[in-house]
Amino acid sequence: MQDSTTLKSRRRADYGYFLKYRTRWSDNDQYSHINNSVYYHLFDSIVNAYLIAQCSLRPQASQSIGLVVSSHCQFFSPLSFPQVLDLALRVNKLGKSSVTYEVAVFSEDNEYPAAVGGYTHVFVDSSSRKSAEIEGQIRAGLEKLFLQDGRKKSQSKL
Amino acid sequence: MQDSTTLKSRRRADYGYFLKYRTRWSDNDQYSHINNSVYYHLFDSIVNAYLIAQCSLRPQASQSIGLVVSSHCQFFSPLSFPQVLDLALRVNKLGKSSVTYEVAVFSEDNEYPAAVGGYTHVFVDSSSRKSAEIEGQIRAGLEKLFLQDGRKKSQSKL
Amino acid sequence: MQDSTTLKSRRRADYGYFLKYRTRWSDNDQYSHINNSVYYHLFDSIVNAYLIAQCSLRPQASQSIGLVVSSHCQFFSPLSFPQVLDLALRVNKLGKSSVTYEVAVFSEDNEYPAAVGGYTHVFVDSSSRKSAEIEGQIRAGLEKLFLQDGRKKSQSKL
Amino acid sequence: MQDSTTLKSRRRADYGYFLKYRTRWSDNDQYSHINNSVYYHLFDSIVNAYLIAQCSLRPQASQSIGLVVSSHCQFFSPLSFPQVLDLALRVNKLGKSSVTYEVAVFSEDNEYPAAVGGYTHVFVDSSSRKSAEIEGQIRAGLEKLFLQDGRKKSQSKL
Repeated sequence: MQDSTTLKSRRRADYGYFLKYRTRWSDNDQYSHINNSVYYHLFDSIVNAYLIAQCSLRPQASQSIGLVVSSHCQFFSPLSFPQVLDLALRVNKLGKSSVTYEVAVFSEDNEYPAAVGGYTHVFVDSSSRKSAEIEGQIRAGLEKLFLQDGRKKSQSKL
Repeated sequence: MQDSTTLKSRRRADYGYFLKYRTRWSDNDQYSHINNSVYYHLFDSIVNAYLIAQCSLRPQASQSIGLVVSSHCQFFSPLSFPQVLDLALRVNKLGKSSVTYEVAVFSEDNEYPAAVGGYTHVFVDSSSRKSAEIEGQIRAGLEKLFLQDGRKKSQSKL
Repeated sequence: MQDSTTLKSRRRADYGYFLKYRTRWSDNDQYSHINNSVYYHLFDSIVNAYLIAQCSLRPQASQSIGLVVSSHCQFFSPLSFPQVLDLALRVNKLGKSSVTYEVAVFSEDNEYPAAVGGYTHVFVDSSSRKSAEIEGQIRAGLEKLFLQDGRKKSQSKL
Repeated sequence: MQDSTTLKSRRRADYGYFLKYRTRWSDNDQYSHINNSVYYHLFDSIVNAYLIAQCSLRPQASQSIGLVVSSHCQFFSPLSFPQVLDLALRVNKLGKSSVTYEVAVFSEDNEYPAAVGGYTHVFVDSSSRKSAEIEGQIRAGLEKLFLQDGRKKSQSKL
C-alpha cells in the first residue's frame, strides 16, 4: 500500500484503464455525499470489468478466481449523486498468485482524484479455493497495467 | 400500474428520457444475475437524475421532495454484470401532489426491455413532511414526460 | 397481489415466520429514511433465509432455484437507521412451479406494518434455467406458510 | 492502522461494544461469499449505532458530524449469507477532532475474527464542513471504548 501523500498526488496519467461510472441515488448517505463503502463497490467493478473484458476471466467458468484479502481507501474530497465518475485502474504489484490493484476515483471534470484506494486479490482454484498461480491471459492482462504504469511514471519524471 | 402485457410490450419509443448506466460487480447476486432489488436502485437513479437535471430539484434545499409510496417491477429476462444498461423514463400519471413514473431497463443492444416497473412519488414539504402540490419547474418537467408519451402512444395506435 | 387496503390492514398474526433485522447506516438515503429499494433486499433476505433454514434449499447445490419474476411494495410509514425491524413472511399463492410471498416490515415496537410487499418466485432448473416443479422439502416448507395463513385468516373472520 | 498480524490476533475480549447483525441475501456476491464492500457497510453501521445510542449523536441535528477520511480491512476467512455476525468495536486513537475506530467481524459461533478493519472519522461542523473539536457526550462515549480497551489489553498481558 502506497503512502497517503503518493496516493493524493496521483493524476489521470498514472493509470492505464478507465471506465466512466454514473453514481446512483442510494450512493449518497444521509450526509448527502457518496458513502465511503460505495467506493469499494466501484473498485470491484473496474477490477472485474477489466478482468472480464481484457483478461478473459469468466466468473462462473474460469478455473481460478480472485478473492480479496485486504483493501483500503483514502478520501480526499466528497462526491455526490448525480455526478458522473471516472474510475482509473493500475497494478502496483504482481506476484505469483496475488495482484495488488490501485483505483482512483475522479469526478468527470477534475484532474485531482477524490479518492484513491485499492485491494489485493489472491487467485485461488474456483473449486478447492486453494491458492493458484496467475497464468495465461490473466497474467498478460495484468502485466499491461503494471508495465504501462512503470513507463508512464518514468516519463512523468522527465 | 399498467398490466404485465402492456409493460412487456414497451419499446424504446415509449419513453422520453434515457440514461446509460453501467452495472456493478455487486449487482449480481449468487445466481450470477442482477439481483431484483438493484432495479429499484436504478429506478431511483433515473427519476432523481431527471428531477435534478430537468426540474431543478435540489434534494437538500428544495421546499418539496418526493417520497415513494408504492413501487413494482416485472422481470422479463435476466441481466448480468458487466452489461451496460439503458434506463428509460416516462410519467404515467400526474396528479396534484403525486406522480407515477414508469422505468424500463434495456440491455445496451436490445429493443426489448429486460424489466419494466416504476413507482409513485407523493411530494411533501421537506420540513413538515405533509403533502404538497407539485408546482413550477417540477410540474413543467414532469409534464414533458407525460405529454410526450401521450402523443407517442396515440401515434402507435394508428 | 393483494389490494392496498388488505396490505395496510395486516398485523403480526397474519404471518407465519419472523426474523429480526438490524438496519444499516447506508439504508438511509439523503432524506434520512430507509430507502425504498432496501425493502426488497429485506424481502430477499427473509425469503431465502426461510428456504435455506426450513426448506433445505442450498443456493449453490440445489437442483432447482427460485427466480423473481415480479415484485411490489406499499410504503405506509417511514423507518430509519438505527431502528431494528421485524420481518414477517407468508405465502399467498403456491402453484406447480411458482410461489407468491408476502412480506411485512414492522418496526420492533409496532403492531402496524411500515411497509408490505412481496414477490413471485418461479422455480427453475439451476443449469438449464427452465421452469421446474416445486417438490419435496421446498413444497412442504412453503405449504406450512400457506396453510397456517389460511387457518389464521379464517379464524380472524369469526 | 495496526499491522496485519495484530489484527489477525484479535479476540472478542479486545473490543468494548458489540452488535449482532444478520447478513442479507444480496451481501453474497457471485462467488457466494459476503462481498468485501459489505464489511464497510457493517463498519459504518456499528460506529454510527454507537455514536447515536451511546454518544447522543443526532445525524440530522448535531452540530458536528463524523466524515470518513480513510478506511481499510483485512479479510481472514469467508462469511456467507445467512450467517449471523457479531460486530465488535474499539477506538484505537482519539485526537482533538479525529477518531480511529477498529471493527472486528465474527461469525456468531467463532472466537477468531473473519475480518478486521476500520476507519478514521474527522469531525466537522455540519454546515461549514470545517474540522471541529470532538466534545461533550461524543468525546465521553469514545473515551469509554478507548480506555476500556487499554485496560483490557494490559490485563491480557498479565
